[in-house]
Amino acid sequence: MARRTLFSSLTILISSVASAYPETEPPDKPVAPSPIATAYREAAERIIKATLAGNEAYAKLTELCDDIGHRPSGSPGLEKAIDWAIETMRSDGQEDVHRERVMVPYWERGRESLEMTAPRHENLPMLGLGRSVGTPLEGITAPVVVVTNEDELEALGEGARGKIVLFNNRMPPYDPEHGSDYGNTVRFRTNGARLASEKGAVACLVRSVTARSHRTPHTGAMNYGDAEVKVPAAAITGEDADMLARFLERGKEPVLVLKMEAENHPYRPSANVVGELRGSTKPEEVVVIGGHIDAWDAGHGAHDDGAGCVMAMEAINVLRKLNMVPRRTIRVVLWTNEEMGLRGGEQYAEDHAEELANHVAAIESDSGGFAPLGVSVDCKDEDRMHLAAEQLNDLMSLLSPLGASDVQTGSSGADVSPMKDAGVMLMGHRVEGSTYFDYHHSPADTLDKVDPEELSKNVAVLATYAYILADMPNRLGDKS
Amino acid sequence: MARRTLFSSLTILISSVASAYPETEPPDKPVAPSPIATAYREAAERIIKATLAGNEAYAKLTELCDDIGHRPSGSPGLEKAIDWAIETMRSDGQEDVHRERVMVPYWERGRESLEMTAPRHENLPMLGLGRSVGTPLEGITAPVVVVTNEDELEALGEGARGKIVLFNNRMPPYDPEHGSDYGNTVRFRTNGARLASEKGAVACLVRSVTARSHRTPHTGAMNYGDAEVKVPAAAITGEDADMLARFLERGKEPVLVLKMEAENHPYRPSANVVGELRGSTKPEEVVVIGGHIDAWDAGHGAHDDGAGCVMAMEAINVLRKLNMVPRRTIRVVLWTNEEMGLRGGEQYAEDHAEELANHVAAIESDSGGFAPLGVSVDCKDEDRMHLAAEQLNDLMSLLSPLGASDVQTGSSGADVSPMKDAGVMLMGHRVEGSTYFDYHHSPADTLDKVDPEELSKNVAVLATYAYILADMPNRLGDKS
Repeated sequence: MARRTLFSSLTILISSVASAYPETEPPDKPVAPSPIATAYREAAERIIKATLAGNEAYAKLTELCDDIGHRPSGSPGLEKAIDWAIETMRSDGQEDVHRERVMVPYWERGRESLEMTAPRHENLPMLGLGRSVGTPLEGITAPVVVVTNEDELEALGEGARGKIVLFNNRMPPYDPEHGSDYGNTVRFRTNGARLASEKGAVACLVRSVTARSHRTPHTGAMNYGDAEVKVPAAAITGEDADMLARFLERGKEPVLVLKMEAENHPYRPSANVVGELRGSTKPEEVVVIGGHIDAWDAGHGAHDDGAGCVMAMEAINVLRKLNMVPRRTIRVVLWTNEEMGLRGGEQYAEDHAEELANHVAAIESDSGGFAPLGVSVDCKDEDRMHLAAEQLNDLMSLLSPLGASDVQTGSSGADVSPMKDAGVMLMGHRVEGSTYFDYHHSPADTLDKVDPEELSKNVAVLATYAYILADMPNRLGDKS
Repeated sequence: MARRTLFSSLTILISSVASAYPETEPPDKPVAPSPIATAYREAAERIIKATLAGNEAYAKLTELCDDIGHRPSGSPGLEKAIDWAIETMRSDGQEDVHRERVMVPYWERGRESLEMTAPRHENLPMLGLGRSVGTPLEGITAPVVVVTNEDELEALGEGARGKIVLFNNRMPPYDPEHGSDYGNTVRFRTNGARLASEKGAVACLVRSVTARSHRTPHTGAMNYGDAEVKVPAAAITGEDADMLARFLERGKEPVLVLKMEAENHPYRPSANVVGELRGSTKPEEVVVIGGHIDAWDAGHGAHDDGAGCVMAMEAINVLRKLNMVPRRTIRVVLWTNEEMGLRGGEQYAEDHAEELANHVAAIESDSGGFAPLGVSVDCKDEDRMHLAAEQLNDLMSLLSPLGASDVQTGSSGADVSPMKDAGVMLMGHRVEGSTYFDYHHSPADTLDKVDPEELSKNVAVLATYAYILADMPNRLGDKS
C-alpha cells in the first residue's frame, strides 16, 4: 500500500527533477568554472532518476523498525539488527560484507516507575537514563527540588541534600537559523546525576529533551564522570516537570517514589557492520558512508538512526544496480553503540588506523530521514576543510533540484569524530530538522514518522555525492 | 511566574483592545441598525478591559488540574473536584451555590496492558475504553485482524471469529473549514466492540482518535448497545495501529495479549454544581453557562473540560466584582459525567423541567480553552434559532476585537442537548480547534497546553455575551 503510493508520487517527482536541470547554460551570462558539476552532471541525473524511480530504502527501514524494533547496546535486538544488515547487504550483492567486533556496554532497563505520592497520587510517565544505576527494590522516596541550571543548583546550598533534584531546563522551540540547541539543552541529561549527587541529592530527574510533548518521555545516555556517589537518573515529561515546578512555586512539596531495576552488566561483544562497493581503479582509497545500527529501547529508531543506516545501504545498492562503480571504494559502515558510549566509532578508527590516510571522506548521517538539505564538512586541517567546502559547493549544486545543495563547515557527527585526529575529511549528511527532537529517544520514533519520498531523496542525494567523491580525479580537499 | 508573564502580556492586550473600538462611527458610510451592540458597547468594553487586566481563571484551572487531576465518573477525584468547585464559588461570593444529586456510572480501569507476542515481543501503549468489560485474569490472547470501516469488517465474513479486531480508521488532519471530523472518526470507539463481537471477535481495539500522535493513546467512552456478547475494548496509538496493519500486509500475523482489570460497578451518587449571579429584576429568568466537571483519568482534563468550567466560574466572578448585575440570573452549571453517559446533562434537564420555559439560553463550553472564535446557536424552533443568530451577529460584533464575533447555527453541545426538546435556546462557546484532538482524552491534556492569555480572552468573551443575554430587554430569539 505504502509502496504503491510511493511509486506514484515518485513518478511526479522524477519529471520535476528532470526538468529542473537546464538543458544548456544560459548563453548571455558569465558562468563560474564548475569542473566537478560539469563533469558529473549526467552521472548525477542518472543516479537521481533511478533512485527516485524506485528503491528499497523504505522497505529496508520497515524491516529494521517493525521486525526488529528496539536495539539498544548489548541487547539481543541489536545483534538481530546486525545480522539483518549483514544478510541484507549480502543479498544486495555488496562486497566484503562482514562484522568487525566491538565490545559494548550492556545496560538493562528492567522495570521502572515514578509515583507521585504528595501532594496527591499519580503515576508519572518516565524513562530511566542509559547507564544509570538502579534504585533499591523498595525505591527511593524523597521530596523534589527543581532547578533550571547550575547556578540555581548552587544557590540551593544544602537544600538538595536528601532530595530528588529535577533539572527543569527547557529545549527552546526549533529555530531555522539556530536549530534545536540540543547540545546545550542535553547537558543535564548527561551530567545531572553527578551534579545532583555532589549536592547530596538521592536521585536525579531531567526534563525530557524536546520542545514538543504529548506527555512522552525521552531517554538518552548519562555519564557519572568522576561522581563519588552514583545516584539513579531518569527523564520525565515536560508536562510533569512543569507541574512539579508549579507545586513548589505554590508552596506544596511534591514527594516522589522512584523505582528502577536498571543494571549495568559487563561489556558484551557486538559489531560494526561493513559492506562495500569496491572501487574500480583505486579500491584502497575509501569513502565511508554510514549511520549507527543501535537505537534506544523506547521507540523503533526510525529516524535515529534507522534512516541513516538504510540510506547508506541503499546508496551503494542503487549504484551497483546502475553498474556505476566509482574509481574508489564506497564503504558502508553501520556503527554499533553510538547511543551509549560511541564504542563503534572509536573501534572503527582504532581498527582502521593504518588505512585512515586513504580515507578520502567519512560521511555520517545521524539526523533522521527528513528532507535533505546538504552537507557539513569538518577537518583537523582547516585549510583543507575550507578547500573541501568550496569543492563541495560546486559538487552539491547538482543536488539543488532536490533542495540539498547547502554546504556548511564544522562538526559533522559523533561516529566519524574519532577519525578527526588522523586528518580524515569528515562530512555530515544534513536534513531538515524542525521535528527531529519531537521523536528523538522516545517511544514516538517510529516508521510512520519517516516520509518515504523524503527518504528516497536522501538516498539519491547521498548516492550522488558519495559516487562523485569516490570517482573524481582529486581527493576532496586536495588542490586541483 | 506564569502569573507575572500573564499580567505583562495582558497590559499589551488591553491597549490593543481599547484602541480596536472606533471612537465614533465613520460619518460617510451607512451603518446598519445595531440596537444591542449600540446599547451594550460600554458594558462590553468595561467587562473586557477588567477581565484582561487580571482574573483568576488560570489560577482556578491550576488548582483543578494540578491539585485534583484525574476526575472520571464515579471516582473520588471527581467528588473532590465537585467539592472544590462548590468551595471556590462560595468563596467568590456566588449565590445559591449547591450540589444537585446525579447518579453516575462508576467504571474502574484497574491495571491493563497490551503485549505483542508475535511476530516479535513489545509492550504496546494502550488505554481501555470507558464502560468496557475487563478480560480474564490471564488476558485474551489472539491474532489481530485490521479493518478501516464497516464494509471491510463485513467482507471478512468468518475471518474475525476468535480474533482481536482492530479498527484502524484515521482521523484526517484538521481542516479550518471542515474541522476535525470527530463525529465520524469516533464511531468505532463507540460502537466497535458491538460490531466486532457480532462477527465473533474476542476483543476490540481502536486506533486513537487523533490526527497527531507521539505514541500516546486516547481513551473515551464506548457503548455495547444491544450486543449479545460484551468483548473488552481498548485504544492503541496510531503508530501501533499502522505497524499491526503493515505486519498483516507483509504476511505476518501479529498476536496480542490484552489484559484489563476494568470493571463496571453499580451507579454512585455524584452531583452537578450550581452557582449564580442572581438577576436584579427578573431573577427567575436564567442564562445557563457551564462545562463539565468530570474528566478522563489519563490527563488532567485541562482543555476537556477544565477550561469550560473555570471560564464559566470566572465569568460571573468578573461581573460580580464589577457590580454588573444583569436583569436576569446567570447560572453556572458544572455538569457531572459528561464523558461516560451524559447523566449530569440529563439530570439537570429533568430536575429543572418546570423552569426550562424561563431558560433564556443554555450555553455550553466544551471545546477547550483555545483562542475564542464565537458561538453556535441551536433551537428546536428553527425560526427562533435564525432570529437568535441574527441578534447574536449584532451582539457578538462587540467581541470582534477579541476575534470572537463569528456566529453559526447548529449543534451546540452535549450537556445542554437534553434541554432542546423543551425549546430552550442552546448555545455553544466556540474556540480555535486545530490542536484540540491532539490532547483530547489522552495523558497530554494538561495545564501547560492552555495559554493563560487565550483563557482570559474566553472569560472576557463569555462574560460579555452572557451579561448582555441576561440583561437585554427581549429574550434571545424573541421578535423585537
